[in-house]
Amino acid sequence: MRAADIIMKKRDGLELSREEIAFLVGGYVAGEIPDYQVSAWAMAVFFKGMTPGETAALTELMLRSGKTIDLSGIKGPFVDKHSTGGVGDKTSLILAPLAAALGIRDPMMSGRALGHTGGTLDKLEAIPGYRTSLSVDEFREILRRDGFAMTGQTAEIVPADRLLYALRDVTATVESIPLITASILSKKAAEGTEALVLDVKYGSGAFMKEASRGAELARSLVDTGSALGLKVTALLTDMDEPLGNKVGNFLEVEESLDCLEGRGPEDLMEVTLELAARMVMLGGKAENSAQGLRLCEETLKSGKPRELFLQNVKSQGGDPAKLLEMRGKYRSPHSAEIRAQRNGFISRIDAWKIGHASVQLGVGRNRTEDKVCPTAGVQFHCKRGSAVKAGDRIMIVWAADEAGLTAALPGLAGAVEYSDTAPGKRKLILREIS
Amino acid sequence: MRAADIIMKKRDGLELSREEIAFLVGGYVAGEIPDYQVSAWAMAVFFKGMTPGETAALTELMLRSGKTIDLSGIKGPFVDKHSTGGVGDKTSLILAPLAAALGIRDPMMSGRALGHTGGTLDKLEAIPGYRTSLSVDEFREILRRDGFAMTGQTAEIVPADRLLYALRDVTATVESIPLITASILSKKAAEGTEALVLDVKYGSGAFMKEASRGAELARSLVDTGSALGLKVTALLTDMDEPLGNKVGNFLEVEESLDCLEGRGPEDLMEVTLELAARMVMLGGKAENSAQGLRLCEETLKSGKPRELFLQNVKSQGGDPAKLLEMRGKYRSPHSAEIRAQRNGFISRIDAWKIGHASVQLGVGRNRTEDKVCPTAGVQFHCKRGSAVKAGDRIMIVWAADEAGLTAALPGLAGAVEYSDTAPGKRKLILREIS
Repeated sequence: MRAADIIMKKRDGLELSREEIAFLVGGYVAGEIPDYQVSAWAMAVFFKGMTPGETAALTELMLRSGKTIDLSGIKGPFVDKHSTGGVGDKTSLILAPLAAALGIRDPMMSGRALGHTGGTLDKLEAIPGYRTSLSVDEFREILRRDGFAMTGQTAEIVPADRLLYALRDVTATVESIPLITASILSKKAAEGTEALVLDVKYGSGAFMKEASRGAELARSLVDTGSALGLKVTALLTDMDEPLGNKVGNFLEVEESLDCLEGRGPEDLMEVTLELAARMVMLGGKAENSAQGLRLCEETLKSGKPRELFLQNVKSQGGDPAKLLEMRGKYRSPHSAEIRAQRNGFISRIDAWKIGHASVQLGVGRNRTEDKVCPTAGVQFHCKRGSAVKAGDRIMIVWAADEAGLTAALPGLAGAVEYSDTAPGKRKLILREIS
Repeated sequence: MRAADIIMKKRDGLELSREEIAFLVGGYVAGEIPDYQVSAWAMAVFFKGMTPGETAALTELMLRSGKTIDLSGIKGPFVDKHSTGGVGDKTSLILAPLAAALGIRDPMMSGRALGHTGGTLDKLEAIPGYRTSLSVDEFREILRRDGFAMTGQTAEIVPADRLLYALRDVTATVESIPLITASILSKKAAEGTEALVLDVKYGSGAFMKEASRGAELARSLVDTGSALGLKVTALLTDMDEPLGNKVGNFLEVEESLDCLEGRGPEDLMEVTLELAARMVMLGGKAENSAQGLRLCEETLKSGKPRELFLQNVKSQGGDPAKLLEMRGKYRSPHSAEIRAQRNGFISRIDAWKIGHASVQLGVGRNRTEDKVCPTAGVQFHCKRGSAVKAGDRIMIVWAADEAGLTAALPGLAGAVEYSDTAPGKRKLILREIS
C-alpha cells in the first residue's frame, strides 16, 4: 500500500477502504507518512468528501490512535454536549451542573478559544485557581462526586486528531464536514460518554455560515456518532448574534452564574434549557425532550445546579466564596463604551465581528500559543430588536491593554446594524436532527 | 501574507495575484513555506485550475527561482522540441541533428525515464562514454560547434520545479494542466531557447489518455509559452502504440541512426519529420511547415544530419566508430520472443502495457534513484495492422536479468490485441495547436 495511491484514489472520488484509512492514520501517527501527503489527502477530502462508512472508519481509527478514558466503576448515564463553537456560547458551564442535578454524568473534555470563537477551558480558567488539566484519576473522582468534570484533552487522547487538526489549520482544510465530524466524535468517544447532544451553530459567528451547511454537518455527526454506538441528537441553533449579553472569559462565568440563579438572558436560557432537556432525555431520565425541558426548568429553580457548579469550582481548585465576591468587579481597567450612532432599532449585532474584535480585546487568540486575558470582554446593554436613541449605551468593553482597546473599537461599533422599524424575531433553534 | 490564506483562496476557486504566487514559490524555494502547505495548494490547483495569467506568472516565477543558460555570443535561431513523454519516443535524437543541419540550434535539456515513459538522457547514456552532465561552458561550446547539445537539468536550473515535481509525484498532484505547463515551460525557457515545438501525446502510453485532455494541455502550453515571449506550436500525436519498432535505451539509439540513414519505420519518420518541419519554420528557415517538411526530407537524404549526430556523440564523450560497430549486437543475453497466439490481424499493441513491462525489463525506472539497463528492450516485428499466423514472431525481448524477463513476459504478450479483419489506419498526427 502506498500513501500516494490512497491520495489519488480519494482525489478521483473513489471510496477508501477501512484498511487504506487505517494505513494513513496509523502511518501518520507513527511518523511514517509525512505531513505533505496527509495535507494533500485532506485537500482531496475537502473536494471529494467521504461516504458515511469512510467517515465512521476514520473517526474510529482516530479514536483508536490513542488512549481512552475508562469510566467503569462510575455509575452513569454518561451524557455530554458539544458545540461547534460560537461567540458568547457558555452553555456548557450551565447545563453540565443542571444535567448533573438530574442524575446525568457529564465527562466533559473541552477545547480552547481559537479565532473568533471562545473556549470553555479559557472561561473556567478565568476563575482564579481553577485547574483544567486534570489527571485521569482526578477527572474520574470529580465526575463521580460532582456529577460532572471539566478538563482539557491530554496528549494521549486521540493523538491523530491533535496532529491532523494542527495540519488542517495551516493548509485550508478545516472546513470539511467528514474531517470535522471525525475530529469532534473521536474526542467525544474517547472521553467515555455514551450519549451526546450536539449544538451545531450556523450564522456569521459560527463555523458554518449557512443553515444548510450546518444541517449537513449535524446529519454527518448524528449518523457517524450512531455508527460508533453513541446515542446522538443535534440542535441547529442560531449564531448570527452573540449568545447572551456577555462575551469574555470571566464575564461569561458571571453570566453562567446568573443563569444558574434563574436570572439569565432569554436567548441563552432558551438554548441552554433545550440542550439540557435532550441530555436528560438521552440519559433516560425523561421520556421526551418536552418532559426533559420541564424537569430542567424545575430543577434550575431548586438551586441544586448552582450548588453543584460551586462544588465543582472547589473540586477543580477554585474558591467559590471568592468567585461570588468577584462578580461584577473583576474587570480590566482598560475600558470604553460603544454608543448608538442614530435613533431607531438595532437590527443585528454581527457575531463574527464581535468575535473578531474580542480577540483584539484579549478574550481569544489567533494562534494556539497566545495567552488570553480573563478580564477582557464585552457586555451588551442592547441587542437585536432594542429601540435606541443616538448616544444610548450599547456595549461596555474591557481590553487587556490600551492598544487592544483602540484596535477593537471600530470593529465593535461596526458590528451594530440599525433599522428604522423593529426587526422580526429570529428563531433561535431552527430544528432538531436526530 | 500567509500561505494558509493563499491556499484557501485557490481552494475557493479565486485567482491568485502575481504577488501571492511569488510569495508561495519564493517561500518554498527558500525553505520558509513547508512542503505540507505546498502540497495542499497543489491539490487545490488540481481541482480548481489556474487562469492563463496565473499559469504564466507561476511559470515565470519558477523560471526565475534559479539560474538560466546564457546563450549570448552564439548565433541562433534557438529552437527546441519537447515531448510530453511516451513509449519508443526517440524523435529528439533524430530531429536535433536534422534541424541543426538546416541552421537551427537546439539547446536541448532533457529528462530521464520515469514510470512507463522513456527518457532521452537514458537513451544517450546507452552509448558507452556519452556524458549528459555537461557544464554550462561545455553545453555552450557543443551547441555552437555541432548545432545542438544534449544535457540534463542542473541543480541551479529551476530549483522550484525540482522541489515541486518531487512533491507532486508523491501527493497525486502530477495530473494538473497548469502545473504541468509551468514545469515544462520554466525548464525550456531556462535553457535559453527562443522557440519551442511541442509534441503533446495522447493515448494509453501517454500521460493524457484522451485527445481532448491532450488538446487542453497543448492549448495551455502554447498560450503560456507565448505569454513568456516564446514562439510555440504544438502537435497532438498518437501514443496508443509505441512509436517505431524499438523500445529500449540502446535499441532506440540504433533506430535513430536508422532514421538518420533514411531507413526508419514509417510512423517514427512521420512524427519526427513533422516536428522537425515546425522547428525549421519557427526558426525562420521555412515559410510554413509544408516547406519545412520538404527541406527536412531533402536534408535527411544529404547525410548531413547523420554526420552531426555522430559528431555530437564524439563531442559528448562517446566513440562514433565503436557505436556503429555495436549496432545490432549490443544486447542483454536474457532474451525471449513473443509469438502470435492466433491467426488474424494485430489490432493494437498497447503502449502503456509495453511501457510498463519495459520497466520490468530494465529499460525504465519506477523511482528516480533506480538504475536503467542500456541493453534491455523490445523489438517489434509486427505492429497494428500486421497480418499474423499463430506462432509468428511479434517481438524479441531483452531483459536486464532473468527475473525481469519472467516478470515482463505476461504483460508484453497481453499488450497484443488481435482482430479477424484488418484494422483501419490510425491518424498519427491529430492536429496542430498554435
